[in-house]
Amino acid sequence: MAAAPVWSVDPRTGKQREQVAVEATAEEVDEAVRAAHAARGALADRAVRAAFLRSAAAGLDAARDGLVETADAETALGPARLTGELARTTYQLRSFAGIVDEGAFLDVVVDHPDDTATPPVPDLRRYKVPLGVVAVYSASNFPFAFSVAGGDTASALAAGCPVVVKAHPDHPALSELVAKVLRRAAAEHGIPEGVIGLVHGFEAGVGLIGHPLVAAAGFTGSVRGGRALFDAAAARPVPIPFHGELGSLNPVLVTEAAAAERAEEIGGGLAGSMTLGVGQFCVKPGLVLVPSGGAGDRLVKSLTDAVSDTDAGVLLDHRMRDNFLAGVAERAQLPDVDSPVTPGAGGEHAVSAGFLTVPAQRLAAEGAYDLLLEECFGPVTVVARYADEDEARTVLSRLPGNLTATVQLSSDEAAGRGRGPELLAELTPLAGRVLVNGWPTGVAVAPAQHHGGPYPATTSTSTSVGGTAIERWLRPVVYQNAPEALLPAELRDDNPLGLPRRFNGALQR
Amino acid sequence: MAAAPVWSVDPRTGKQREQVAVEATAEEVDEAVRAAHAARGALADRAVRAAFLRSAAAGLDAARDGLVETADAETALGPARLTGELARTTYQLRSFAGIVDEGAFLDVVVDHPDDTATPPVPDLRRYKVPLGVVAVYSASNFPFAFSVAGGDTASALAAGCPVVVKAHPDHPALSELVAKVLRRAAAEHGIPEGVIGLVHGFEAGVGLIGHPLVAAAGFTGSVRGGRALFDAAAARPVPIPFHGELGSLNPVLVTEAAAAERAEEIGGGLAGSMTLGVGQFCVKPGLVLVPSGGAGDRLVKSLTDAVSDTDAGVLLDHRMRDNFLAGVAERAQLPDVDSPVTPGAGGEHAVSAGFLTVPAQRLAAEGAYDLLLEECFGPVTVVARYADEDEARTVLSRLPGNLTATVQLSSDEAAGRGRGPELLAELTPLAGRVLVNGWPTGVAVAPAQHHGGPYPATTSTSTSVGGTAIERWLRPVVYQNAPEALLPAELRDDNPLGLPRRFNGALQR
Repeated sequence: MAAAPVWSVDPRTGKQREQVAVEATAEEVDEAVRAAHAARGALADRAVRAAFLRSAAAGLDAARDGLVETADAETALGPARLTGELARTTYQLRSFAGIVDEGAFLDVVVDHPDDTATPPVPDLRRYKVPLGVVAVYSASNFPFAFSVAGGDTASALAAGCPVVVKAHPDHPALSELVAKVLRRAAAEHGIPEGVIGLVHGFEAGVGLIGHPLVAAAGFTGSVRGGRALFDAAAARPVPIPFHGELGSLNPVLVTEAAAAERAEEIGGGLAGSMTLGVGQFCVKPGLVLVPSGGAGDRLVKSLTDAVSDTDAGVLLDHRMRDNFLAGVAERAQLPDVDSPVTPGAGGEHAVSAGFLTVPAQRLAAEGAYDLLLEECFGPVTVVARYADEDEARTVLSRLPGNLTATVQLSSDEAAGRGRGPELLAELTPLAGRVLVNGWPTGVAVAPAQHHGGPYPATTSTSTSVGGTAIERWLRPVVYQNAPEALLPAELRDDNPLGLPRRFNGALQR
Repeated sequence: MAAAPVWSVDPRTGKQREQVAVEATAEEVDEAVRAAHAARGALADRAVRAAFLRSAAAGLDAARDGLVETADAETALGPARLTGELARTTYQLRSFAGIVDEGAFLDVVVDHPDDTATPPVPDLRRYKVPLGVVAVYSASNFPFAFSVAGGDTASALAAGCPVVVKAHPDHPALSELVAKVLRRAAAEHGIPEGVIGLVHGFEAGVGLIGHPLVAAAGFTGSVRGGRALFDAAAARPVPIPFHGELGSLNPVLVTEAAAAERAEEIGGGLAGSMTLGVGQFCVKPGLVLVPSGGAGDRLVKSLTDAVSDTDAGVLLDHRMRDNFLAGVAERAQLPDVDSPVTPGAGGEHAVSAGFLTVPAQRLAAEGAYDLLLEECFGPVTVVARYADEDEARTVLSRLPGNLTATVQLSSDEAAGRGRGPELLAELTPLAGRVLVNGWPTGVAVAPAQHHGGPYPATTSTSTSVGGTAIERWLRPVVYQNAPEALLPAELRDDNPLGLPRRFNGALQR
């Protein structure tokens, strides 16, 4: 059987641009994993991998114009957004280099012997070691930041783990270009190029998760695809951690007082957030609880105006376009669902933004309306009008897990009067990031960031953005009564590497 | 159908002591989980839960004599060992109270807005919140330390999670007594007694892992039982973390130089470690690589002498005794396997310790001898005689994951000469705890402890002993642009609770 070709496709026309590669055979997947595994020793030195990450960032910055051009041709996301996304990606690589330098992620803990403990404590010295080869499944919607050189790859390399990337079929040409830059950066530091593997094809992705030398996986994508891979990871003879970011509705609660105070501002802000990137953000607000009555009506009016003014856009591929159109149509035909601005086709390749409204009470119990509590990828949101706070709370209590939950408060509520503090506590069980008076689109790269949440937002308690993303690729090991002469430098009493640590119970910077 | 009775059985006679309870029905499991879930708010205050943990420890200490008597009657582990295990258990509860007080486990990270970042960073404040109800599956072999009030329960309560324990059928009467002490301690602090649920019966354990309000599970037991529960946890509509400690061979490598220097000391130490608690430790050394030749012969001779002198002992139950006798017989009948001291039946209820020897080359490739690379619970170990280091290394490379790996070195090797440092690095991939010149039995409760290892030692990268065991029951949440007036005290700029944290990138004690 001839190898299946991998085509780069222009979503603005639906036309094939070029053949980029062929789908990887089982043998090629095996080769990529073995090459990555063989490269792991070259990542052992923290100074080397920090330098590698910085070279990778510099290489991507230097190749910017060509990369953005290819990315735009394959994704239609536009040069401005893609230039920004690339900058974010290289910033992230450099941030992880800083995290490697600091070494706090090693979680060093040293306990000297203590005969007064029950039972007595021997000499114990713990830190974290890399898990091994990490499989990274790229996202469609962030061709740079959640793809070949994205957060999963950056954090895995920072942890000392080689990576084999399953390229997303929406940007195979870009994937090849970025992988080349990373490999060149590796070679600069004497790291075998196999440290970054790249495979194309659905079967290759399935093969990757089952490979005995793959030790963990990161994934960004759909609930269906992610769950299938999660299940495969759990069913292995030796199960492995699967850190998947699958789907999220990202609910927004607008209080009565907030609507009264800022109806137009909120309506306009929502329009901007839900249409950003043609609605193709995993943190797009997909369900907005708005009070019934006049203030809520004003909010919906301003949302209507702003969304009507939004240009049609091209989705990442035609399958997504079909799914979007079908998903919108299926939702819109439910009784009592209105569409003040109807989302739909915008010409042969584009789609136009819109939103639906529904009485919140329709969402209060299991039934056909549960469809409105499922993510619909693309520029559409659902505005649920609630009669009172209990109704809104009932809807929130029915939601599956989310990446984000947002509350729009009045100035009084934000100042701690009224129910502000309770609302924050009530939203906390729903999500991994809780926002006040903002919009969830835009995920900053920062030490405190948490981009994850209860299932199906993620399949683990981890984050795929921010400094702590590195924790996913490590496991602890403790040495008992190992003589100083045999210990890694990280664990020696005199702390020659100046690592932050816990020493005899006390935290030391 | 009448409810199935739960009997307390004396393993020294095989006779039923008393009926303790009945197996929980599905409705009773549901009630226990709902009661635990309803109690979670009462654990929200860290001061309250630290006080609860200390009261639980004090209550157990006060009830010591009765508890030890019941434990001994059900497990035959002996009053001395059980008194020590109870002391360890209350020490552990108090240690977790200290961990709660300190609050480092909250992992507080605060980032002020930063417009110079790419993209700009908003105000982000992260900490960790409890996952919810934790299901704890008790172990047979540690009726105190890995059971109702053991490490899983202590760490879950410390994290703010209510617990429902599946009692182990080997000590149901003790389980009831300990649960009562914990509930009394809870009541002292205004915490509903439902914060500690206790259910008996196999079906109850299966029901527990599938309950929608169970948010995570801890398990200590066999590979078969643990894997079945792991699979069930992963197959739920909403999968949950399953932290299982399943099985471990705990290999020991004795170098040629170590044998030459300390043959008798090593043989005697091994005998003590493998027969401790009648060989019923998850960290019992189950495979010992000993050089062929004279020094190794001396080691085997001293092991023979010491094991021959060991008294027969009673295993935890008769099923284990049957499995032990069958497992030993199956191993002993392999060609080239000798038993210098034959393990076997010691009277009607007890067993006698012994060990097997085998040429290491028999273990170098897949085949019938793989049985020797599986844990055999009870007082037996396998001594594999290796011709050269490569042969030993080949055997080590074939092992599944382990809780511990041990190397016995000569004084020269321990001082860093010869292959000491490389051997330590070679053993690291095998286990979560690597020991030098010691024995793996005995797991200290300490900040640096790591009791876990690659699968099947554990089903996750976590530990069930030591301070970081608390991490299993938490998930991060970040607040974005939440006004100071709405923030939990843990996340405020002025740090009113004095928590260690990362503040604008810098670690603060």
